[in-house]
Amino acid sequence: MANSAVVTLVQYGASLRRFGASPLARYLVIGAGLIAMTAFTVPDLRGVAGPWLSACLWCCLAYFVVEGGVRLRGASHAGGALRLLFSPSGIVDLLGILPVPIALLCGVSPPSAWLLASLWVLKLAQELPGFAQLARVFVLEAKALASVLVLFLIVLFLASAAMHLIERAGQPTQFGTLPASLWWAVVTLTTTGYGDEVPHTALGHLLGALVMMCGIATFGLWTGILATGFAAESRRSNFIQTWDLVSKVPFFQSLDPAAFTEITHMLRRVEVPERTAVIRRGRVGDCMYFIAEGEVQVDVEPVPVILGSGTFFGELALLGDSIRTANVSTTKPSTLLILDLADFRTLMAHRPELARAIDAEGKRRMSDNLRRRELQRQGSVVPS
Amino acid sequence: MANSAVVTLVQYGASLRRFGASPLARYLVIGAGLIAMTAFTVPDLRGVAGPWLSACLWCCLAYFVVEGGVRLRGASHAGGALRLLFSPSGIVDLLGILPVPIALLCGVSPPSAWLLASLWVLKLAQELPGFAQLARVFVLEAKALASVLVLFLIVLFLASAAMHLIERAGQPTQFGTLPASLWWAVVTLTTTGYGDEVPHTALGHLLGALVMMCGIATFGLWTGILATGFAAESRRSNFIQTWDLVSKVPFFQSLDPAAFTEITHMLRRVEVPERTAVIRRGRVGDCMYFIAEGEVQVDVEPVPVILGSGTFFGELALLGDSIRTANVSTTKPSTLLILDLADFRTLMAHRPELARAIDAEGKRRMSDNLRRRELQRQGSVVPS
Amino acid sequence: MANSAVVTLVQYGASLRRFGASPLARYLVIGAGLIAMTAFTVPDLRGVAGPWLSACLWCCLAYFVVEGGVRLRGASHAGGALRLLFSPSGIVDLLGILPVPIALLCGVSPPSAWLLASLWVLKLAQELPGFAQLARVFVLEAKALASVLVLFLIVLFLASAAMHLIERAGQPTQFGTLPASLWWAVVTLTTTGYGDEVPHTALGHLLGALVMMCGIATFGLWTGILATGFAAESRRSNFIQTWDLVSKVPFFQSLDPAAFTEITHMLRRVEVPERTAVIRRGRVGDCMYFIAEGEVQVDVEPVPVILGSGTFFGELALLGDSIRTANVSTTKPSTLLILDLADFRTLMAHRPELARAIDAEGKRRMSDNLRRRELQRQGSVVPS
Amino acid sequence: MANSAVVTLVQYGASLRRFGASPLARYLVIGAGLIAMTAFTVPDLRGVAGPWLSACLWCCLAYFVVEGGVRLRGASHAGGALRLLFSPSGIVDLLGILPVPIALLCGVSPPSAWLLASLWVLKLAQELPGFAQLARVFVLEAKALASVLVLFLIVLFLASAAMHLIERAGQPTQFGTLPASLWWAVVTLTTTGYGDEVPHTALGHLLGALVMMCGIATFGLWTGILATGFAAESRRSNFIQTWDLVSKVPFFQSLDPAAFTEITHMLRRVEVPERTAVIRRGRVGDCMYFIAEGEVQVDVEPVPVILGSGTFFGELALLGDSIRTANVSTTKPSTLLILDLADFRTLMAHRPELARAIDAEGKRRMSDNLRRRELQRQGSVVPS
Repeated sequence: MANSAVVTLVQYGASLRRFGASPLARYLVIGAGLIAMTAFTVPDLRGVAGPWLSACLWCCLAYFVVEGGVRLRGASHAGGALRLLFSPSGIVDLLGILPVPIALLCGVSPPSAWLLASLWVLKLAQELPGFAQLARVFVLEAKALASVLVLFLIVLFLASAAMHLIERAGQPTQFGTLPASLWWAVVTLTTTGYGDEVPHTALGHLLGALVMMCGIATFGLWTGILATGFAAESRRSNFIQTWDLVSKVPFFQSLDPAAFTEITHMLRRVEVPERTAVIRRGRVGDCMYFIAEGEVQVDVEPVPVILGSGTFFGELALLGDSIRTANVSTTKPSTLLILDLADFRTLMAHRPELARAIDAEGKRRMSDNLRRRELQRQGSVVPS
Repeated sequence: MANSAVVTLVQYGASLRRFGASPLARYLVIGAGLIAMTAFTVPDLRGVAGPWLSACLWCCLAYFVVEGGVRLRGASHAGGALRLLFSPSGIVDLLGILPVPIALLCGVSPPSAWLLASLWVLKLAQELPGFAQLARVFVLEAKALASVLVLFLIVLFLASAAMHLIERAGQPTQFGTLPASLWWAVVTLTTTGYGDEVPHTALGHLLGALVMMCGIATFGLWTGILATGFAAESRRSNFIQTWDLVSKVPFFQSLDPAAFTEITHMLRRVEVPERTAVIRRGRVGDCMYFIAEGEVQVDVEPVPVILGSGTFFGELALLGDSIRTANVSTTKPSTLLILDLADFRTLMAHRPELARAIDAEGKRRMSDNLRRRELQRQGSVVPS
Repeated sequence: MANSAVVTLVQYGASLRRFGASPLARYLVIGAGLIAMTAFTVPDLRGVAGPWLSACLWCCLAYFVVEGGVRLRGASHAGGALRLLFSPSGIVDLLGILPVPIALLCGVSPPSAWLLASLWVLKLAQELPGFAQLARVFVLEAKALASVLVLFLIVLFLASAAMHLIERAGQPTQFGTLPASLWWAVVTLTTTGYGDEVPHTALGHLLGALVMMCGIATFGLWTGILATGFAAESRRSNFIQTWDLVSKVPFFQSLDPAAFTEITHMLRRVEVPERTAVIRRGRVGDCMYFIAEGEVQVDVEPVPVILGSGTFFGELALLGDSIRTANVSTTKPSTLLILDLADFRTLMAHRPELARAIDAEGKRRMSDNLRRRELQRQGSVVPS
Repeated sequence: MANSAVVTLVQYGASLRRFGASPLARYLVIGAGLIAMTAFTVPDLRGVAGPWLSACLWCCLAYFVVEGGVRLRGASHAGGALRLLFSPSGIVDLLGILPVPIALLCGVSPPSAWLLASLWVLKLAQELPGFAQLARVFVLEAKALASVLVLFLIVLFLASAAMHLIERAGQPTQFGTLPASLWWAVVTLTTTGYGDEVPHTALGHLLGALVMMCGIATFGLWTGILATGFAAESRRSNFIQTWDLVSKVPFFQSLDPAAFTEITHMLRRVEVPERTAVIRRGRVGDCMYFIAEGEVQVDVEPVPVILGSGTFFGELALLGDSIRTANVSTTKPSTLLILDLADFRTLMAHRPELARAIDAEGKRRMSDNLRRRELQRQGSVVPS
């Protein structure tokens, strides 16, 4: 009996470890850590629940140490521990682990030392693929963004010098020095508008109105540049990520390069965890799926069909039947490529041979299905 | 005479019922309900017109109950009452009907209970097709938007921790705790700028300026992502909705798939209620219309021409005559497909055969018209 | 002598009338009227310069009456006075002329009556072509914009009801009624942030932060929709306006429809007043010009060359010589079509025959020039 | 020994002069000048470090005088001193040099006179190429932007006149005159929201809410126009700048014009200073490089390979090997053309002959490499 308890414990331990390694647990720990850290700066809460908050913070820190250790061991196995330490991810790990203990050792009071735990927020960015994309947009559009920044600085300096001249007599504490006037200009140009420094003269109002409208113009340019850059970058990154997956689907390998490129531009990649419903029976469908990696199960009668990597499903929705006729769910973590109805129709217009191939495959599968059902009716009973 | 009064009443009742089922009545009821609910929270108005407001609110609630009942009966006829209840639309219906009575039964005071009527605002979204589109944009761009959100959170936490350190000595009530400092950071990063918490030191001003500029950058990225996503989604959704309608127009059925796809991308769908003017004589025209569903009447002399589903009109505007020569109005609720002058010209350059077909049809119709007028002059008088 | 004085007066009168009919004079009068009207509301200025301001306002009003009369006479000649009165332009004219006198007649005090002169600002929009374009964007994207508006309203109502519940105990004057709370929600959702109503509780701060972030999201969607719509509309309107002009240039008439459409998409229309420099010698050029309407003079030695409607110039900049070799200026108000270097190169890659035609025309003109110079050297002296 | 000291001095002087002529030094001087100027307006700092700040400002001024002189001499050599003075760059130079001394000579107090040094911020824009691009966007979209501005003015005037009427009784100092009311309208329409003037009546709140929503709409339109314009302009300017460089690469000269145009649209220009790493061994690569101007060194064993203008490298990353196999760095200031993986794949689909050419060149180079290594093994020892 003690034996079975140990087994149970081991089992619980294993599933706990598995949960601990999951991204969900990671985000929960980061969230708990940040909330505890925030609460720890409020004297009232510290008075009521100080030890609990402290314990929570230490637990989070321990979790990050373990996580960093696991990552380091993985890297040293692959032989690149030092490289890891100086990679962005490694630096974020170190920033999450070291500052707080060092500050405490240096004699900083705990509430101040734990403020450094706000660096844990950087861990949120550690495994986000979208970040590389955003960074690329900033790098590619650097010249244009720098021009907007210089425009911003020019308006800032000239406006604050002028406002300083106009308002310094009337409001010496608000506009008496250029730094104070610059603060007003920043607050106004960004359309934040705290209202702690406001011009009072007619001329000041006129200048203020001009600065606000420059703020909108600057803002518009900035947004325009980022929107342009982001559109290009997002098309590019989707294409590159999809290309390799598309190569794995046999159905596409027979395509000539131009058709291959065209369909790669159309497909959208989606990662589906294990045992998740992809298609629900009775819903309206407007896309078909190709399985780049993984496996799905189609719940048709009498026996569910298993479709492996390289096959496709849901094509009936694109060939006329918009109501899904069966549930489909993943049996393994899978990477699916989605072909949308609109893209499918465009593709079919340019490449009718593709439509015929998909149609033939669909019919073949349907006849398979009928035959299997026929066989079942004739003899064997298959338990559900 | 009493009989005729009953008939009149029945007739009024019928037209009232028809009005009550129209979207306009629905929006009026929702609007009246929200206004009454808002007024009900003001003690002065409650003192003056309390019973009237209360009556208005109960009427609106009754209307929603009836509406929900009608919808439920419709669904149960079709056999899916339960599915309706758990659909977004059903949940919105329940949220509009149940909370207020339940709150009143639980003994909540009427002014507080009727606050729950603010949930009626959700009914505005119930039948808006654009919502699905906006939701899709958020889903498709989820990864990129999440990256921007994480960027936002990182700046938020680091800035408020730093500001807390800088300003807590000078302004203990404003920046003395991290939650207070976080509030400042949110207000500043979103460029809202209430001005209830403002840094006073030079270092605080510098950090504040940085945070505002980060706010603009974040904002720009966010807008860029949504703009990109929305552009793609709007093209896609227009294409899909138009495709099925285009298939119904015989004129397009002879086109090869590539031309069909091309013209589907160009056409814009518009739904016109009964007895509405589509073209006014003497106006400058820059588009032609295909009738996907419904019927229009062209007011040509001597007898108006009726054009049914699958025909087109207004093509003269694209073939040289920019001034409309006749009034055209719908006789039934119709779905029209609009082909713009710019798109028409592009299309004609690629597909001259289409231009010829439209030209031929236009000429045929004109000769028809002349012949009919000739016939009329020779003999019969047609009552208008 | 009196006679010559009369002639001079008549001449001055004529040039004054010409100036008075010019757009510049119109904008000056509108500007002066708006400034005078604004100044008239300030008691101090009214005390100092009341009669002058009053006189200025009456002059502006007189100008608008004359302008309206001229417009009406023009329209009644063409037979559509009534139609004019009910057109947007006619309504703006009436709103500029009637309200102030009517208010004065009804016994409203002058400072209040002249406030109605703020309607003159509508006259700025009267002759702006871009307005139709903006209006079209709003109409075409109406469904999507309505969805965003409904989203905005939903967040507005739910947030203000929640904030009313959270804060009404602590701040009864700021959040004690739903209208007050709605005012806070509008000010916050639009990121205006006056700071007159600010939540004070922790829960209120959390809700406020959420509302601000919703504000940014709504804003982003709104901007995205307008950006998408505007891009499409601007392409379309440029194409339509350019098409008719392109048809007038003989050089393009030989093109097949596809090439014609392609070049129409590339050309940009620009209207140049009389006697204006289009090209300056020695500057770097990156475009060529086609003359759709009007006339230009090329200052080549020995005699300037006059180029009329349908010809082109500045093509050397695209064929290798980036430094302009001669001044070119208009001799009549002209409409030019600009072909940019980037578009020219793309065009040349697809349509090499066009490049050859432009090249041949350029060479022919150069040899013409040489021959003429030769002729001049041999004999006749042409006065500049 | 004195001789060597002089030599050292001369050497230091030369390297100092070289540094002084570099853009970095220029930006440092501008930055120092602006900071000193800002500090000089604060009485406390002037008391503590007045002479130092003053000296710093005079030094910066001297630097700008020298810089202007060098520029002028360069221009007068080329024969265009006057033209330079009236060019934007020349005016900025004059604005940086003259105003402060003139103000001091006119007897303005130093702190006020040095305020004019804020004009130095204009020097930041002097050599930024992106500025011309931004200016072009504003010029090309002028009509649309003017429409938005007029819309803004209309809302501004009508809203402030209405708010003046509504609120003047309750808040005579805030809304008693139209100028004061206009100030509120500007602050609100730009969503700045200082909060110094806030409507208090219910009607005022309603109008205020409308104005804020108009502000968002105006903002969205403005951003949309700039985004559209910027996207087009950025494509155009990249194409033009790249075209000339592409012509210099022999590999592209054999392409037909359509392919040439296509690849020019894909390439991105980047300028790399001397001795800078372009590719790092072991990194993941997703682009290849063409050398338009300059020279790079590929660190392959046993002897580094030097690649000159017109060659390409890094192509293995696009042909299957995503891990870089050698370090590549520039030996001279170089201009590289980058071809991205996504564009490369699209290009290969349309132009398979290009893929074959790149493949062949890659193989040729690899065999070269092998042969050289072979030669080295057989005999000669090459010093690294």
